[in-house]
Amino acid sequence: MKTMKVGMIGGEFMAKAHSLAMAAVPMFFEDGVRLEKHTIADIDKDSAKGAASKLGFSHYTDDWKTIINNPEIDIVDIVTPNHLHEEMAIAAAEAGKHIICEKPLGRNAEETARILEVVEKAGVKHMVAFNYRKTPAVALAKKYIEEGSIGKILNFRGTYLQDWSADPNSPLSWRFNKEIAGSGTLGDIGTHVLDLAHYLVSDIAEVNAITRTWVEERPTQDAQTDSLGTIKKGNINKGKVTVDDEVITLLKFSNGAIGSLEATRNAWGRHNFLTFEIHGEKGSLFFNYERRDELQVCFSDDPDDRRGYKTVYTGVSHPYGEGLWPIPGLGIGYSEVKIIEMHDFLSAIMNDKECQPSFKEGHRIAQVTDAILTSAENQQWTKTKQ
Amino acid sequence: MKTMKVGMIGGEFMAKAHSLAMAAVPMFFEDGVRLEKHTIADIDKDSAKGAASKLGFSHYTDDWKTIINNPEIDIVDIVTPNHLHEEMAIAAAEAGKHIICEKPLGRNAEETARILEVVEKAGVKHMVAFNYRKTPAVALAKKYIEEGSIGKILNFRGTYLQDWSADPNSPLSWRFNKEIAGSGTLGDIGTHVLDLAHYLVSDIAEVNAITRTWVEERPTQDAQTDSLGTIKKGNINKGKVTVDDEVITLLKFSNGAIGSLEATRNAWGRHNFLTFEIHGEKGSLFFNYERRDELQVCFSDDPDDRRGYKTVYTGVSHPYGEGLWPIPGLGIGYSEVKIIEMHDFLSAIMNDKECQPSFKEGHRIAQVTDAILTSAENQQWTKTKQ
Amino acid sequence: MKTMKVGMIGGEFMAKAHSLAMAAVPMFFEDGVRLEKHTIADIDKDSAKGAASKLGFSHYTDDWKTIINNPEIDIVDIVTPNHLHEEMAIAAAEAGKHIICEKPLGRNAEETARILEVVEKAGVKHMVAFNYRKTPAVALAKKYIEEGSIGKILNFRGTYLQDWSADPNSPLSWRFNKEIAGSGTLGDIGTHVLDLAHYLVSDIAEVNAITRTWVEERPTQDAQTDSLGTIKKGNINKGKVTVDDEVITLLKFSNGAIGSLEATRNAWGRHNFLTFEIHGEKGSLFFNYERRDELQVCFSDDPDDRRGYKTVYTGVSHPYGEGLWPIPGLGIGYSEVKIIEMHDFLSAIMNDKECQPSFKEGHRIAQVTDAILTSAENQQWTKTKQ
Amino acid sequence: MKTMKVGMIGGEFMAKAHSLAMAAVPMFFEDGVRLEKHTIADIDKDSAKGAASKLGFSHYTDDWKTIINNPEIDIVDIVTPNHLHEEMAIAAAEAGKHIICEKPLGRNAEETARILEVVEKAGVKHMVAFNYRKTPAVALAKKYIEEGSIGKILNFRGTYLQDWSADPNSPLSWRFNKEIAGSGTLGDIGTHVLDLAHYLVSDIAEVNAITRTWVEERPTQDAQTDSLGTIKKGNINKGKVTVDDEVITLLKFSNGAIGSLEATRNAWGRHNFLTFEIHGEKGSLFFNYERRDELQVCFSDDPDDRRGYKTVYTGVSHPYGEGLWPIPGLGIGYSEVKIIEMHDFLSAIMNDKECQPSFKEGHRIAQVTDAILTSAENQQWTKTKQ
Repeated sequence: MKTMKVGMIGGEFMAKAHSLAMAAVPMFFEDGVRLEKHTIADIDKDSAKGAASKLGFSHYTDDWKTIINNPEIDIVDIVTPNHLHEEMAIAAAEAGKHIICEKPLGRNAEETARILEVVEKAGVKHMVAFNYRKTPAVALAKKYIEEGSIGKILNFRGTYLQDWSADPNSPLSWRFNKEIAGSGTLGDIGTHVLDLAHYLVSDIAEVNAITRTWVEERPTQDAQTDSLGTIKKGNINKGKVTVDDEVITLLKFSNGAIGSLEATRNAWGRHNFLTFEIHGEKGSLFFNYERRDELQVCFSDDPDDRRGYKTVYTGVSHPYGEGLWPIPGLGIGYSEVKIIEMHDFLSAIMNDKECQPSFKEGHRIAQVTDAILTSAENQQWTKTKQ
Repeated sequence: MKTMKVGMIGGEFMAKAHSLAMAAVPMFFEDGVRLEKHTIADIDKDSAKGAASKLGFSHYTDDWKTIINNPEIDIVDIVTPNHLHEEMAIAAAEAGKHIICEKPLGRNAEETARILEVVEKAGVKHMVAFNYRKTPAVALAKKYIEEGSIGKILNFRGTYLQDWSADPNSPLSWRFNKEIAGSGTLGDIGTHVLDLAHYLVSDIAEVNAITRTWVEERPTQDAQTDSLGTIKKGNINKGKVTVDDEVITLLKFSNGAIGSLEATRNAWGRHNFLTFEIHGEKGSLFFNYERRDELQVCFSDDPDDRRGYKTVYTGVSHPYGEGLWPIPGLGIGYSEVKIIEMHDFLSAIMNDKECQPSFKEGHRIAQVTDAILTSAENQQWTKTKQ
Repeated sequence: MKTMKVGMIGGEFMAKAHSLAMAAVPMFFEDGVRLEKHTIADIDKDSAKGAASKLGFSHYTDDWKTIINNPEIDIVDIVTPNHLHEEMAIAAAEAGKHIICEKPLGRNAEETARILEVVEKAGVKHMVAFNYRKTPAVALAKKYIEEGSIGKILNFRGTYLQDWSADPNSPLSWRFNKEIAGSGTLGDIGTHVLDLAHYLVSDIAEVNAITRTWVEERPTQDAQTDSLGTIKKGNINKGKVTVDDEVITLLKFSNGAIGSLEATRNAWGRHNFLTFEIHGEKGSLFFNYERRDELQVCFSDDPDDRRGYKTVYTGVSHPYGEGLWPIPGLGIGYSEVKIIEMHDFLSAIMNDKECQPSFKEGHRIAQVTDAILTSAENQQWTKTKQ
Repeated sequence: MKTMKVGMIGGEFMAKAHSLAMAAVPMFFEDGVRLEKHTIADIDKDSAKGAASKLGFSHYTDDWKTIINNPEIDIVDIVTPNHLHEEMAIAAAEAGKHIICEKPLGRNAEETARILEVVEKAGVKHMVAFNYRKTPAVALAKKYIEEGSIGKILNFRGTYLQDWSADPNSPLSWRFNKEIAGSGTLGDIGTHVLDLAHYLVSDIAEVNAITRTWVEERPTQDAQTDSLGTIKKGNINKGKVTVDDEVITLLKFSNGAIGSLEATRNAWGRHNFLTFEIHGEKGSLFFNYERRDELQVCFSDDPDDRRGYKTVYTGVSHPYGEGLWPIPGLGIGYSEVKIIEMHDFLSAIMNDKECQPSFKEGHRIAQVTDAILTSAENQQWTKTKQ
């Protein structure tokens, strides 16, 4: 069993999710490697110290370059706001470290192009954390599609609906700041759906979008904390929202399929309502992450009197099943999804394979994202550049 | 109790639905009128005779003008394929008869404009059978919106998914013929969603659409019968499909809301999956006709620890409830929806009010439909003409 | 096309449901007979006159024996409270008339035994209105079972949950009066589940029950009207509830299966929640009348990676489908269920077959009902007498 | 931050779940303690070594008494088959160690009485792993009940349905051996429902049960491994099943409520279908662990036109929410449930409070379990001894 040392940059919710995955992954999958949580970097010493204690890192720092400069560290895990990804990822790659980076990979395709160039030159492994494709039910959808079980794909209809910022008094997270985030709902959650569309259907060739900012000002937060949703601060100072609250786009895929995507964080009653429905010539698939143990599938070759959408609960017989729990319905949570993601990352490193999804996908999705914003601005069909 | 005499033109599935409604409506609602099923017209004498016997009409004819020319007849019910609506409706109006006409009102807005002009001049009552807004749960959604319970509407996401023509060997109904139908899925089922969007949100100002024909040829049927779906004929002669199988469109409403609509008859596993979700500043609504007893609603002013989508089963406390069944869940079927529609038609006649929806809405939806087809052809945002 | 004349006894909600079915049945099914709504009897002349006008009967009376004594009348339809069934059914049978009678057939098995004896001797057709087995999805469950698709049945779990009397201020319908109703929730709705269990699994051999009366007094209603649920009267006079509000019973079937049944009218949020789940050696079935277009089915012989509960929407390919609507999801409501029931009744008459379910089943269910009440009283396993 | 050392006895699926929880709990909750995974014991050295490596224990042994005899170890975690619990728990308590033990606590109430006596005398903390009550949605149900939101409870209807042993060729786990397991489905999963009933409603006073063994022989497994479900071995040797495959029982609670419970592992299509529905005078609750992020609740004091079951997704505003993920729907899996359980165990230790549920509940549920088996044997109502 090999040991690899990890340096993590960032200390909030995603740091927890990744740290859990690092601790848990050898209990679930046999990748031949154990991760040592070596150093965590956060915006100041106190935050970093607290995060180290909580998440189990041996060292902490308020200077992320300490991690880059430490030759003992094998892996850099970037869970900071988006505007910091480029500098950090490039530095990590140039230092020869494998990288896992939260999504979106950058604020725009210019940034992601630069990142991609460097990591490819450096020859390190790189993964972008579009974790939802790691849900076993999504991996099962991919398997059915590849086996031809639903035939040629006709269309894709995706949504990602949340309500943590539906209340105009919910705080001004950095996620509402274009300088930091690049875009709003589109980059934050819309990109997850784009990744699924790209993964399950094919490359996206053209888009045609509307964006809207429903709440123009929100109460500011102290520092750059990222309190989501219903945690209301008493702060009466308001700051400007500079990104989209909602995006709807039409999609044309390179394989001829068509589709649509809607993402909004102003959908009361929806929380992590990441759904897709795909209709093919021989069947259909439906998935809703809020009920993520389940994949719904309809096969046209069932007899007329017994055809219908079937609810398959993922378990041992499905992707990643051997490593997870012994029966379906014990439950896939956010933990399990992040554990699978970490497993795939480590497996790619140990077997010297390309990560899925790598920064290539991170960059490609950035190109599509840029095209969506351009389309929304120009109000016309826009080709995704390559 | 007044009696009014009805002449029906057309003898297939919709004739049954309307005839049932005519027989049943006095048992459900007190409109002060009883309908006498007087004459039914169909394409030949045998068909007409059979329909009369089955549906309970005293007379039958193979010449629909017999109905128009009979001064005893008060109401004309048009349930023919779309290309015949214009001539029949105009003749009926000019003969001073009240008219209920199946949707879409015409093949395009030029036709519907001519129809509308004549009926308004004639001063008769006119209703277009966008029956789904008559579902009690949809009427309840309208009530919640009008009461302000979900606040200002932000967006609308509608679908109408069926699979009766997903099989490429399902027969070439007239619904696949542009000359007869005007358009395909868009006119046949997409217009129902447009009507709901128009009714619940506001007028539709601009559209931006994709259309696709997935199956280019289908086995022909004898005559102009309209066998839907899984009834496969052995006919090996194939005819050309000249309409859309699928349409996806973006929507901009005149009140500032945005939205999308997807309609397809190639969605394996979906049958009459007419859904909408509406998010407002203060709440959300979801409806799925396949579970039509239910309206899902989320109100933002519920406390944080007990907020969520609520499933309201319609009953006596909801729109049309007093006339229907004594407890929720006994069940709204197609029969009940058509009975409510007939009740609203008769109520408008008896109280000398405008029908909801009238040919005005029928014409307006035709304008939107035309804009969608134009948009799909030109691949750009298109204003709906007025 | 033959015509048969009907006399109906009773004028409330069930009279409407049956009258609708009579008017509609020839539009849906080809039974070779048309029903003429001849005479309706109600508790006084005004009620009877109103019911005749509303439901389309040519004659009315306040003396139900007028119907019995009219030799023109072929069919008697009994939709009165339970305590009147015996006298009416026996009189109708002795007068040589075919009978359809609402459930439960009588207040107890002594009554139903007497009724059964007379109708069998008279040689008339007799049907008891356990209408829920007429739902196409339930008939499909029966078909799957008979085809062996779920193998030997292991168990049955049924519920019937309503909430129209959950409010202690909802009025004292006759359904709370043992003298009139025989039993409470058990007879009113529990018998429907017993009928389904008997129909789908096998005869019920032994029972073991608990019953409870949750609300001991309720506001009285004027006369013996039957206002259900949320219609609250201001009446402050209260009357005693003399029946069960809830029953739970274990079941042993004669074929070795086991099961349970719970029925209550005090289940807030459930309205007509008539459900069953059946597990067999080779598969499972689930049905919920609140979503009555759907039958859920799981087949064990599906491959491990694509096994799960499938949602089949009933349509043309399923029982009664040819007579109903052309695609699934247009919708089965209470109307359609009652239309199918009437069709089966007429079909039995026209083809000289035994009705399903006949008074035999009505009597058998009464025996099971009696055993349940005995069991609840004695607190022990009780065999159903035969 | 205090550190406590853990010795774990047992090395299979539950060892993984507990080990994950130990590693993760400080990342989620601030209990002031960190667990050191010190020693793991398994049936032989190889198994123990493998488990230690996989799960992160520093030491391993094939003699569980090594753990008991090690004075450094503070906590003993027992995840062995049931027949070993007594000896191990008693030894651990006598050695002064805190204990967490998988359910059921023992094979019968005689065993659990002896265990309880010793732990209470020893003054150590003791928790029995009825983990499902730790699901946030279940804890929310408890909160609503305690706040009086659904009023006085009338009834409880619980199920636990699985299908991993529905196939008669699935292997003979120790769970089918009465000597090892004590009982079958009842002890394995039925006890979880009993714990929920006891926790949410009140103590169970009387029971009346049926049990059945549907598959009398199964293929044996090598050693005492516990391969669940669809993992079929080619072994043609068969061994006798000596426990129940299914149990259905009526319940009378000490507070006057009534109820029922059904547990089976032969329910094709159900996997971890642990559900309960509770109706109270003022509302209802429904939970299904297969959709464990959701609690369904209906409040009677909602207005008539907007009453219905509401789906509450648990998140920050609900029990345990602050420690979990920042928005609802990111997802509760088996990991999160076990992490919460470990948190509650550690919190009880650190704050010197009684664990919830402790061995008291473990013993009480054993008494109810015994009564259910006695009732099934004697076919009569049986009081639960105290």
